[in-house]
Amino acid sequence: MRYDVFGLENPIIDLLAQVPDAFLAQMGIEKNRWAMIDQARHAELVRALDSVPLRYESGGSCANTIVGIAQLGAKAAYCGRVGADEHGRIYAEKLREAGVTPFLRSGTVPTGSALIFITPDAGRTMNLFLGACRELAPQDVPVEDLRASRWLYLTGYVWDSDAQKEAATLALRTAKAAGIPVAFSLADPIYANRHREDFLRLIRDHVELVFANREEALALTGRDHAQEALRDLSKLCPWLALTLGHAGALISTLGETVYVESYPVHPVDTTGAGDAFAAGFLYGRVTGVSPLQSGRLGCAFASRVITQVGPRLSGDVRGALAPVLGDVRA
Amino acid sequence: MRYDVFGLENPIIDLLAQVPDAFLAQMGIEKNRWAMIDQARHAELVRALDSVPLRYESGGSCANTIVGIAQLGAKAAYCGRVGADEHGRIYAEKLREAGVTPFLRSGTVPTGSALIFITPDAGRTMNLFLGACRELAPQDVPVEDLRASRWLYLTGYVWDSDAQKEAATLALRTAKAAGIPVAFSLADPIYANRHREDFLRLIRDHVELVFANREEALALTGRDHAQEALRDLSKLCPWLALTLGHAGALISTLGETVYVESYPVHPVDTTGAGDAFAAGFLYGRVTGVSPLQSGRLGCAFASRVITQVGPRLSGDVRGALAPVLGDVRA
Repeated sequence: MRYDVFGLENPIIDLLAQVPDAFLAQMGIEKNRWAMIDQARHAELVRALDSVPLRYESGGSCANTIVGIAQLGAKAAYCGRVGADEHGRIYAEKLREAGVTPFLRSGTVPTGSALIFITPDAGRTMNLFLGACRELAPQDVPVEDLRASRWLYLTGYVWDSDAQKEAATLALRTAKAAGIPVAFSLADPIYANRHREDFLRLIRDHVELVFANREEALALTGRDHAQEALRDLSKLCPWLALTLGHAGALISTLGETVYVESYPVHPVDTTGAGDAFAAGFLYGRVTGVSPLQSGRLGCAFASRVITQVGPRLSGDVRGALAPVLGDVRA
Repeated sequence: MRYDVFGLENPIIDLLAQVPDAFLAQMGIEKNRWAMIDQARHAELVRALDSVPLRYESGGSCANTIVGIAQLGAKAAYCGRVGADEHGRIYAEKLREAGVTPFLRSGTVPTGSALIFITPDAGRTMNLFLGACRELAPQDVPVEDLRASRWLYLTGYVWDSDAQKEAATLALRTAKAAGIPVAFSLADPIYANRHREDFLRLIRDHVELVFANREEALALTGRDHAQEALRDLSKLCPWLALTLGHAGALISTLGETVYVESYPVHPVDTTGAGDAFAAGFLYGRVTGVSPLQSGRLGCAFASRVITQVGPRLSGDVRGALAPVLGDVRA
């Protein structure tokens, strides 16, 4: 197999900028919130940041997971649409640096980007421009490379424009025809709620493994208790990983429920906890360890990510997770 | 049936005294710790408290649960050995006040008691004298009343002197012969570790429902993960309620695992959380609601108890738990 996990979603370049509170006030940005912005506003803000040193990261929920999987030592690929611009070039370069094979077609719309303003009080304010992500189309999917993968991974964020849905559907059908299991993350309670019917059908018809946190699972099922949501979803697909924040995670596998304890840590920034869990868990599935051990890899990875700022671990990830990884190798 | 739940364990009268730190220092008591004391020391401390106003409560882990069950509206009985003394008389009276039928034989050894010193900083220091509890003997067990009960409930604390073990064994055999299910709480990680072989055999041969918190389950099974302990114990008995503190609880019932969320509260004093959980859960079993609903009753009761000082709720317990109880009636 060429790749252990093939990811498909929204390549969003993170632009991290340290700015004074006055900058936000001057630009009319509400502090510590996130907002969706359009291309004009995005260009305006990038211009305003002209003299500010920026840190770039190949962001997006799915990319976080895919990079994590590569850091653990598995072979990973990532597909999405970028712009024919500097941001798109940096995005691909950052993926390659992380050991991920990029499949990034570019078009006329600029690369999606998240402007992340970090204020002196360590506050995080995000302005998100989806840009080229929404132009992802079926012809962007490298069907042969997908067929040469062990898992397809995508998230609910890809269920947006009609073109994106068509691309995702092509990927799902390709995987099904090739017997490649699909892992799907619900991504966000708002998405789970907005696309409830589509997601339930998609899970039932195409998905081997669903990732959901408690809020997403409740939103999707309309339940008010994790156990009820677990029961409903486990009827739709063979595997479910339901994360419960500091309470750990539940893995449902072919009717059996396995409880995974969380690791006791003091969280600094919970951004990317779910993405990291998915990375650890999928790595466990790729390597064939038990559901409990896969869950422990997920919880351990997440516990590391939330004790630092930002959704990615840097440095020796296998070393950081060594007590849980043991001798596990992809 | 005469009683829904018949409890058997150690009747320990709680003597709550508000004392200055100087009192503890003067009596050589280590603050905020608990210690086992003998009869002479107990008498010495009670004399020293002569001029201090005392509050009495019919304490002990099993009695906490049995009183909780009565507060929820079920018929409950409680059996143990007390002394032929004022403390024994008060103990029985307090049980009756709570709606519990007492079966308390008395002997020559004084009633067991817990001296609970509350210092001005809200610290709790306990000196425990087991006293008459350890004299419990087979002839103390009212066999006909036990046979007229729906459940027998006991805890690991009763597994102490040979006489107590004989009494517990008689109760277990009586229940088995009469087809009465037995619920057993591991009580304490130290007990679970000390009596591992006995408890494992007892669970396998006699118990329908085990209550354990995470630490007790790990101590009993020698595992280091809740899921592994759950798997081991669920092979020994049909029902297991494994409490996870703020992470909620897992119910294992005939091979199925059900997860119960905790209720988000700010704990003031976690004393009696496990006893309250057992009360709510057993009440659920008595009334025949689902495993999930039984677990919710347990978690709800525990969440109420830990938001106040001491192991018992006072006032309208059914009212306090109304949102979870719904229309449930014993």
